Amino acid sequence: MDYRVKCIVSYDGANYSGWQIQNNQPSVQEAIEKSLTKIHNNAPIKIYGASRTDAGVHAKGQVFHFDSPIDMLPDRWRLAINTYIENDIFIKSVEIVDSEFHSRFHVEKKEYNYLLSTNQFDPLRRNAVEFERRKLNIELMQSEIKKLVGTHNFKSFTSHSEYTSYERTIFVAEIIDNDGELTFRFVGSGFMRYMIRIMVGTLVEIGYGRKENILEIMSKQDRQFAGKNASSHGLYLEKIWYK
Amino acid sequence: MDYRVKCIVSYDGANYSGWQIQNNQPSVQEAIEKSLTKIHNNAPIKIYGASRTDAGVHAKGQVFHFDSPIDMLPDRWRLAINTYIENDIFIKSVEIVDSEFHSRFHVEKKEYNYLLSTNQFDPLRRNAVEFERRKLNIELMQSEIKKLVGTHNFKSFTSHSEYTSYERTIFVAEIIDNDGELTFRFVGSGFMRYMIRIMVGTLVEIGYGRKENILEIMSKQDRQFAGKNASSHGLYLEKIWYK
Repeated sequence: MDYRVKCIVSYDGANYSGWQIQNNQPSVQEAIEKSLTKIHNNAPIKIYGASRTDAGVHAKGQVFHFDSPIDMLPDRWRLAINTYIENDIFIKSVEIVDSEFHSRFHVEKKEYNYLLSTNQFDPLRRNAVEFERRKLNIELMQSEIKKLVGTHNFKSFTSHSEYTSYERTIFVAEIIDNDGELTFRFVGSGFMRYMIRIMVGTLVEIGYGRKENILEIMSKQDRQFAGKNASSHGLYLEKIWYK
Repeated sequence: MDYRVKCIVSYDGANYSGWQIQNNQPSVQEAIEKSLTKIHNNAPIKIYGASRTDAGVHAKGQVFHFDSPIDMLPDRWRLAINTYIENDIFIKSVEIVDSEFHSRFHVEKKEYNYLLSTNQFDPLRRNAVEFERRKLNIELMQSEIKKLVGTHNFKSFTSHSEYTSYERTIFVAEIIDNDGELTFRFVGSGFMRYMIRIMVGTLVEIGYGRKENILEIMSKQDRQFAGKNASSHGLYLEKIWYK
């Protein structure tokens, strides 16, 4: 019988077109599957990721699982997979789990962070943080973001129209101001495509006075009332909790 | 009469073969000179940097100067130069200085930092920090590094043999341990080629027990007794003070 292997992985999204395999474009999923295929003497191995992060988005705690006939200790798995991937992806930990476990279907909640610096541009962090030069009313943004907490229809904050429901629950939404470097923290039951980046983009526009009242924007249930999509390189998939 | 312009610049060294212009290899100096040449309607402008950082080495406070017939406010200069360079280089501040000022000859002291993490590898910081997996005796390293403070012959810590004197003065040498991430701080009158990286490499070898007694190594005045050259991507030119 096969073993089900659960992995926590971090990656720098800069060189990838996202998590999911796409034709002729480098993806994180493909890079990891290639490594696993080598470990399995060229037998193809498919992995199942918890989140489909977009192009340029980073992860500190993405989770995936796969099945393997190989009986190996968790730390050996970790070393083996890391051996065959580039150093912009790193398997942090491995666990052998119950065969019922599913990285995507059993998610309880997820945390995403968005890093936005209001300080002077730093070339050393150009792919790790978004820089904002306009003057922001951070206190106003901090009070507006809290209004997103709860169960709401978030249709205004996604550009996708394939969902059967636009209702999601946000447990934590806050902005931590660390000497001008803002961390937007979101913990929620799940997030729709571009949802975090559109919420951040909207809050930034509120911060410099181009928009106001996030609850009113949300109540429109229409993407055109929200702000621009904040760029991908400030976004981090931070952590995933399971039931 | 020309104006002498002093600039403080930060850069990510990853994509450059170092500060100094070299044939057919990208250098930070060349990138900045190209931008200045555009600003001067294609008249070539030569810049003078305080330090010749090596390939891969980063800077947060490199200093250079140049002369220009253009009469422009400092912040205008800053914006203009930044317009024509890639975003891995950033002019942080500009000052119009006395025509006697020289970025290299008038240096009083320089600070270099070396970042070495003993924590788990982080793919997001792979070009910003060196990672060390061996177990280090940090307290021992902290006490050994202090012995480098003072005026000494540092010939053991450079692989170059063109200097007329190998005597330098180190004012500060310390290791700050921030939850397993070590910052080696050096403030000195000047540093020879590879000097910081060889001192760091030697201290790391002392930390895992391969070498001992940095004063004895220094007293040999011979490169072969010191440790390996620590890799370039952990090194930062932090700050330059002028007389």
